[in-house]
Amino acid sequence: MSRTVYLNGEYLPEEEAKVSVFDRGFLFADGVYEVTSVLGGKLIDFDGHAVRLQRSLDELEMDNPISKEDLLEVHRQLVTRNEIGDGLVYLQITRGAADRDFAYPKDAAPTIVLFTQAKPGLATSPLADKGIKVISIADERWGRRDIKTVQLLYPSMGKMAAKAQGADDAWMVEDGFVTEGTSNNAYIVKDGKIITRHLGNEILHGITRAAVLRFAAAAQMQVEERPFTIEEAKAADEAFITSASMFVMPVVEMDGEAIGSGAPGTVAKRLREIYLEESLKAAV
Amino acid sequence: MSRTVYLNGEYLPEEEAKVSVFDRGFLFADGVYEVTSVLGGKLIDFDGHAVRLQRSLDELEMDNPISKEDLLEVHRQLVTRNEIGDGLVYLQITRGAADRDFAYPKDAAPTIVLFTQAKPGLATSPLADKGIKVISIADERWGRRDIKTVQLLYPSMGKMAAKAQGADDAWMVEDGFVTEGTSNNAYIVKDGKIITRHLGNEILHGITRAAVLRFAAAAQMQVEERPFTIEEAKAADEAFITSASMFVMPVVEMDGEAIGSGAPGTVAKRLREIYLEESLKAAV
Repeated sequence: MSRTVYLNGEYLPEEEAKVSVFDRGFLFADGVYEVTSVLGGKLIDFDGHAVRLQRSLDELEMDNPISKEDLLEVHRQLVTRNEIGDGLVYLQITRGAADRDFAYPKDAAPTIVLFTQAKPGLATSPLADKGIKVISIADERWGRRDIKTVQLLYPSMGKMAAKAQGADDAWMVEDGFVTEGTSNNAYIVKDGKIITRHLGNEILHGITRAAVLRFAAAAQMQVEERPFTIEEAKAADEAFITSASMFVMPVVEMDGEAIGSGAPGTVAKRLREIYLEESLKAAV
Repeated sequence: MSRTVYLNGEYLPEEEAKVSVFDRGFLFADGVYEVTSVLGGKLIDFDGHAVRLQRSLDELEMDNPISKEDLLEVHRQLVTRNEIGDGLVYLQITRGAADRDFAYPKDAAPTIVLFTQAKPGLATSPLADKGIKVISIADERWGRRDIKTVQLLYPSMGKMAAKAQGADDAWMVEDGFVTEGTSNNAYIVKDGKIITRHLGNEILHGITRAAVLRFAAAAQMQVEERPFTIEEAKAADEAFITSASMFVMPVVEMDGEAIGSGAPGTVAKRLREIYLEESLKAAV
């Protein structure tokens, strides 16, 4: 059965969901996106994603073609129409179609598209039980990683480099310090303290990151937001990543070396439990 | 009259030229492009663009869906069908459509699209007689600028920043040195010597740049390929840019300060003449 895709006000079979070759999302990567996870048919942290979406649009002086209320309704419609129990809702807004010119067009109508991906058992991933392996690569992305744009070629290349080495993902390193994973925020744990890079233009302001740090503080866990190195990661007691689709995922190996015991750590496991429990309570 | 666009083997009215919302060009900026200029109905340096296209594809492990001979034929067909005297042919190849995943899909068919833009009087632009104004901005693009990808959001932002300051373009600066313009290579002239940044991952390997440096050498002009600063540019005798659509274009102002006399310089004017004359001779 074909998925239903939402495109500029219409619900279409995925085969019919097409955009102009003149769309600036296609020609200039002039677009932003969000991915919201769905558990048991409910949306996790929809508000957080809606707020960040607006921030990304504002940073690019791009019009928002939809109200928050309507956006929630489209999310829910797609979850229902595509019978998503566990999965993801992907949302992208671009500056729209116009004849090709580096300068922004004056009168293009933004393009908005949403689609779903079914991921049965998303929260009970066996991967979380064994943890993932990462490699380190140089961070060669652009300087405004705080804007969630579709300029994702380098993260894609990083994911392929990881796979080529038998790993699951890559952590990116700039000026000697870890920025983040290819599509997630990065953390280490040392002597009971959770360490993750501070916010800035260098990393995405993860919605799951914000929630996890909030839950960690509420659970009296120590958190330090500062840059850390790959050497610190290798010497850490444990490591993990967070993202909307992976929640809290333990990292057990870095560049072929075991982190801590080489098995998922207790802090990561506890945070994953808390995150899933609290997020499900607040899901809409 | 609607333009004819070439898309995956078909010649279509531009309104019908659409790609899937799942195309990786749209979702990941996972695509490369070339722009070839047309003068008097003939293609300027088609071979140079075809060679660079193959290099970009190779760097991204992306399949080339078309032979060089067929690509030339499509360029010529579009020039004829759209009655292009002076203008541009734009070409883009992406990794194609697949369900969204950072990892490259195994079996997606590449998307190839070409369209034209009419630019009557392209080679006799009045802009060349008065020169353009540029501003300097930090270079915040990704690290592989030698691959001609569609990750063009930052250059677009730079162009808008220039316009906001009443200028025409922006030169980007990294670690204190000029890399290039938003969609062109950058040059200064001091004491008769042409200075332009050396090739590397930091700049696009301009097809027009290669031709201009070849013609400059043939005309016994001195050329030095090395990094230079904005301060050197402001103190230079003249400055200019090169690109497939601007050819050789004098730069007369940097950050509000006149360069040299504040009028197009003799070296830039001479190089523009030579470039147009020689390129037209070799046009196909």
